Amino acid sequence: MATRAEVHQKNIQNIFYPESIAIVGTNKVKGTVPFDIVNNILKAEFNGVVFPVSPGERYIAGVKAYKYVTDIPDEVDLAILVFPSSVCHLALEQCGQKGIKSVIVISAGFKEVGGVGVEREKRIKQIAEKYDMSFIGPNCLGVINPDPKVRLNASFARRMPEDGSIGFLSQSGALCTAVLDYAYSRHIGFSKFVSFGNKADISEIDLLYYLRDDPRTKVILLYLEEVSDGKGLLEAAENVIRESGKPILVLKAGRTSKGAAAAASHTGSLAGSDEICDAGFEQAGMIRCDNLEEMFNKAIAFAYQPVPKSNRMAIITNAGGPGVLTTDAAIEGGLELADFSEETTKVLKKSLPKTANIKNPVDVIGDARADRYNVALSAAFKDDNVDSVCVILTPQSMTEIDLIAREVAKVSSHYDKPVFASFMGEADVAEGVDVLQRNRIPHYLLPESMARSLATVYQFKEYLKKKKKEVPALSDVDKEAAEKVLSEAKKEGRNYLPEAEAVKILQAYKLPVLKSKVAKNEEEAAQYAQEIGYPVVMKIMSDDVVHKSDIGGVVLNIENDQEAKDAYNSIMKKVKDHNPDAKIDGILVTQMVTSGEEVILGAKQDPSFKGVVMFGLGGIFVEVFKDVTFKVAPLSEDDAEKMLSEIRGSQILYGVRGQAPRDIAALKDAIVRLSKLVDDFPEIKELDINPMLVQEEGKGCYVADARILI
Amino acid sequence: MATRAEVHQKNIQNIFYPESIAIVGTNKVKGTVPFDIVNNILKAEFNGVVFPVSPGERYIAGVKAYKYVTDIPDEVDLAILVFPSSVCHLALEQCGQKGIKSVIVISAGFKEVGGVGVEREKRIKQIAEKYDMSFIGPNCLGVINPDPKVRLNASFARRMPEDGSIGFLSQSGALCTAVLDYAYSRHIGFSKFVSFGNKADISEIDLLYYLRDDPRTKVILLYLEEVSDGKGLLEAAENVIRESGKPILVLKAGRTSKGAAAAASHTGSLAGSDEICDAGFEQAGMIRCDNLEEMFNKAIAFAYQPVPKSNRMAIITNAGGPGVLTTDAAIEGGLELADFSEETTKVLKKSLPKTANIKNPVDVIGDARADRYNVALSAAFKDDNVDSVCVILTPQSMTEIDLIAREVAKVSSHYDKPVFASFMGEADVAEGVDVLQRNRIPHYLLPESMARSLATVYQFKEYLKKKKKEVPALSDVDKEAAEKVLSEAKKEGRNYLPEAEAVKILQAYKLPVLKSKVAKNEEEAAQYAQEIGYPVVMKIMSDDVVHKSDIGGVVLNIENDQEAKDAYNSIMKKVKDHNPDAKIDGILVTQMVTSGEEVILGAKQDPSFKGVVMFGLGGIFVEVFKDVTFKVAPLSEDDAEKMLSEIRGSQILYGVRGQAPRDIAALKDAIVRLSKLVDDFPEIKELDINPMLVQEEGKGCYVADARILI
Repeated sequence: MATRAEVHQKNIQNIFYPESIAIVGTNKVKGTVPFDIVNNILKAEFNGVVFPVSPGERYIAGVKAYKYVTDIPDEVDLAILVFPSSVCHLALEQCGQKGIKSVIVISAGFKEVGGVGVEREKRIKQIAEKYDMSFIGPNCLGVINPDPKVRLNASFARRMPEDGSIGFLSQSGALCTAVLDYAYSRHIGFSKFVSFGNKADISEIDLLYYLRDDPRTKVILLYLEEVSDGKGLLEAAENVIRESGKPILVLKAGRTSKGAAAAASHTGSLAGSDEICDAGFEQAGMIRCDNLEEMFNKAIAFAYQPVPKSNRMAIITNAGGPGVLTTDAAIEGGLELADFSEETTKVLKKSLPKTANIKNPVDVIGDARADRYNVALSAAFKDDNVDSVCVILTPQSMTEIDLIAREVAKVSSHYDKPVFASFMGEADVAEGVDVLQRNRIPHYLLPESMARSLATVYQFKEYLKKKKKEVPALSDVDKEAAEKVLSEAKKEGRNYLPEAEAVKILQAYKLPVLKSKVAKNEEEAAQYAQEIGYPVVMKIMSDDVVHKSDIGGVVLNIENDQEAKDAYNSIMKKVKDHNPDAKIDGILVTQMVTSGEEVILGAKQDPSFKGVVMFGLGGIFVEVFKDVTFKVAPLSEDDAEKMLSEIRGSQILYGVRGQAPRDIAALKDAIVRLSKLVDDFPEIKELDINPMLVQEEGKGCYVADARILI
Repeated sequence: MATRAEVHQKNIQNIFYPESIAIVGTNKVKGTVPFDIVNNILKAEFNGVVFPVSPGERYIAGVKAYKYVTDIPDEVDLAILVFPSSVCHLALEQCGQKGIKSVIVISAGFKEVGGVGVEREKRIKQIAEKYDMSFIGPNCLGVINPDPKVRLNASFARRMPEDGSIGFLSQSGALCTAVLDYAYSRHIGFSKFVSFGNKADISEIDLLYYLRDDPRTKVILLYLEEVSDGKGLLEAAENVIRESGKPILVLKAGRTSKGAAAAASHTGSLAGSDEICDAGFEQAGMIRCDNLEEMFNKAIAFAYQPVPKSNRMAIITNAGGPGVLTTDAAIEGGLELADFSEETTKVLKKSLPKTANIKNPVDVIGDARADRYNVALSAAFKDDNVDSVCVILTPQSMTEIDLIAREVAKVSSHYDKPVFASFMGEADVAEGVDVLQRNRIPHYLLPESMARSLATVYQFKEYLKKKKKEVPALSDVDKEAAEKVLSEAKKEGRNYLPEAEAVKILQAYKLPVLKSKVAKNEEEAAQYAQEIGYPVVMKIMSDDVVHKSDIGGVVLNIENDQEAKDAYNSIMKKVKDHNPDAKIDGILVTQMVTSGEEVILGAKQDPSFKGVVMFGLGGIFVEVFKDVTFKVAPLSEDDAEKMLSEIRGSQILYGVRGQAPRDIAALKDAIVRLSKLVDDFPEIKELDINPMLVQEEGKGCYVADARILI
């Protein structure tokens, strides 16, 4: 039997490319959603048949209406539900009976209002499952497909956007209208535009996979208000990015806790910690944006222009200051100012006035007309040292603004190198900007945004070059052993596992716990100590002795067999002196490690992303500097290495002040294993290894203390 | 005699409010600066007389022209020079003879081109001084004063901006045209608009003081490409802000080193380190912006609306997502979501639909028309718990966009509470945005920018509340003693001062150096040790003994008189054994301090800001975490305290992990004294106290090692 995800992939096609649509629950009241939907579909010149379904009307907007969806004589590819939520299940049932597989539920009044809404949402989901139907929504703005083949505006948005190559997926419906309006003014086109609302059935994950295979989509934009299935989202995103090479730009609301509360009050779900979101998105290769403007700035960079071959860029400007701002932002983003070839330098020197700056960034000076821009543009594009060009213009009284825009379009069209522009200002430059936008040259109000967007394209290209990191299988872990310890604790109703039990679990996953053994006599003590390797610590094992150190029940720093035997006897004597009736389980002989760099390794379960691993430097570094980093489990070795290098104090691990570097390999291995452990056991709510002592290179690292909450 | 600054303040008035202007060096070639300037002044309907001066023409743009400025029969208040730089000095000389005191030099070809240009700039400056003239420029776009009294567009910018209350000062001319165009489309008005170019005579400092006293200016904007007289700028800025309560928003190019190089190649001056810029601007109370958009976002917030009484704000939106984004940004900026009064809650509950969110942020839901906005706006403004209101709108098909804009204007007009708006989108919302802008309601494309701008206004209000911090006089420092040490080193041609000399200088400024004295016999050793207080260190003083410790020339941890005597004799014996001919200056008895938190205290001379003080935690914290902070000297106690609290690891000083807090008072005093020292002696190029050992509260701090470069 097909999974729901497979069913969705089959049914989504008819959501975007239906030949016939039933709008179920429509009416004649203009300015309401039920009417506007019909009207919008017709106005957009939908390439197919529309069947309004309205219990009380004979026709809607000039089109014959039917009482029930089952009354429609033809086949129907897509149903759009605009009935009140209280009767949606009846309409959906009829859609099922009619054999309709693809549905958009626009209606609100479901999970987002709580109570009865939650029940209603469950009910329509069950109906969809029964009939192998798939629906988008409920509580959404609808779906738009500007593809000239279909021209579908199945939404209550005012505008049908231009056709283009940006796929937009949004959890918020209201935001969509702002996005459409913003995009319209900038000639930004879309391949698909979806408001997925409560995503009760088809989720953003299904839609991502659909856009992966959609040949009209080059860039995917995702607006989220909460992440429900974080792990699933990350997996899908990484697959889509890797398999299609399409970037996913993501905007997620809810950065502060008050913000999260506001999100919760309106989506009916709690937002996860934002740091973990950041980490997870980055792991999956998604590009997180801070706001809509940044998202579209980057989207058009990906959608309109080729990828630069290298990071060497040229800047051409008629104003020094903005050239500086652009240079700053470019370099921060990993780009480089190209060193011009001799030929370029010669041409610029010959053709530009003496006061011009012929070095990169090229300043053609405030009074430049189109001819100077042409010289600089032609030289830069021709130069093999230059792989992208950024053009800046400020409108002086003699500046030939739209001529220059045309030059940018003309010169760049002969080369497969990306070109970006920032014509600063607004009214005066508007005509020039329009020329740029119609020629699909990404344009930016701020030159810094231009540089940052180009940098993002370059960074993404570099990201795709790196091979996907595999999470190792770790066939040597003993999952059952760990399971046994956990289930015993659960059976006893305990949610805190003391060190000894935590150590057993860590040991089962081959984390570097200290070697130890229980000796029952002085010979065993010496023998085990030798096996473990000196120095060792010996400690009484007895539930009847509480303050073991105070009564001499612990001996540190035992260096040889004789000392081991002496320690055994001394401990036994002291314990017996102290409490002759103490029940003694033996004496624990443990490897002694006191030195090493203290680090902290932790894990917890996040409501959205499940198992999450934390790493940081220990002691004061975590307490005062909060110098820690997170990643979503499970992790590859590369992920672990990234954690080590991305804390601020990473130099301390890699060797600083003449100190030898620490055992990075061992530490990476421990992080990978820990990530597998929390991924295997979602019942581990919190786990702390604090400190872990990291020795010099080749000498390992050791769990010095650990605790687990379940 | 009046200072140049006093002369400037007198002459600036005629630059902005002339009744007659001579444009010197103009011609008839349209589209060139010399002609455009005349044309722009006439087109802007200048309220006064224009006298073109052109050696070869009888008239310019229909106005009678004169061969020389001295030929003009009337008095001339302002001369604008547009001659080539090679003859500007001749024209300026004639202006002097004519008795013109106020001049704008538009012409380029001065310091910015180097070589002969530098000489030309010096020459015109000398002429200005000779005649008590003042000029703006050279190499600038000119000056604009939209005040209806004068309507002066003495620039080659295309546009005369609207009249308003923003004073704009720019080092870049080209950027000005972009700014004017940007502002025009948003109905942003200016009180004064100045491109000051090379600022050879009148500087941004003079202009800041002018704007301080200009009753038409409410907000000051400053765009800088390099800071030449940083100290002067900071002093002026702080005075202007404190005395007038007007905020100064500053945008400075050159964040990265490559950026700084680009700036240098085109302004003929090196940009100072950006971190120091940041610190200095903040000390002076200036608000640094990252880009032009942010600058104007904040400028209109200050210019158009009253200051909020408190940080409690209300958000009204028809879309949940943007409400969350706004909340996030508001809280990050120190604002709070107001808790509504019972009355407000009652009204909202009664009048808004059930699906609406009646808590702050209020969500009137996507299908809201103007009536719901009216209800929410009225309730929020009326609520005493609310001191500012942010309105968000996304354009759904039923949204009454410009009606809602009118409601915002109408309701807010009855209250003295600031209101801000973000109508998201572009074309659809344009009419509504226009209504807002004409009503001087600050409007933002992004709701986050709206919240951040409001937060900035609130933060500035809080800043003004705090009293200006006084730099203490420190009458107990012995400047002469320090001077003596420095001049001796200079005399000997040394630029490195060893510890002993550095300590003498620090001691003169009462920095807490370790107590020490030179003993010549065992009695003195014991006596001095007692005076200093045990434990002490004793060390041989002899240039003939290099490795003092190796031969037993140093004894640590001396606890009493007997040990002091013994140590004296033992050291003497060992040194003599080692080298019987060694010349011995005595034995240094020094206070012994080994414990304490290590901090680093440094100072250097910055090319723009002169004396700069650095503070940070020592050892690994400075080496790996770069946990240091800078301020421009001299410092108040508050400044010093701020340095302590703004490093990331400040908790370590204030007590962490059960440790007692350190002696903050002593450390603050040391920082203040160090700042005075580098302020008094610009010849101290670098000074490092590393480490300084900070004891527990009340127990002081000590200079453990110090070095000075001159």
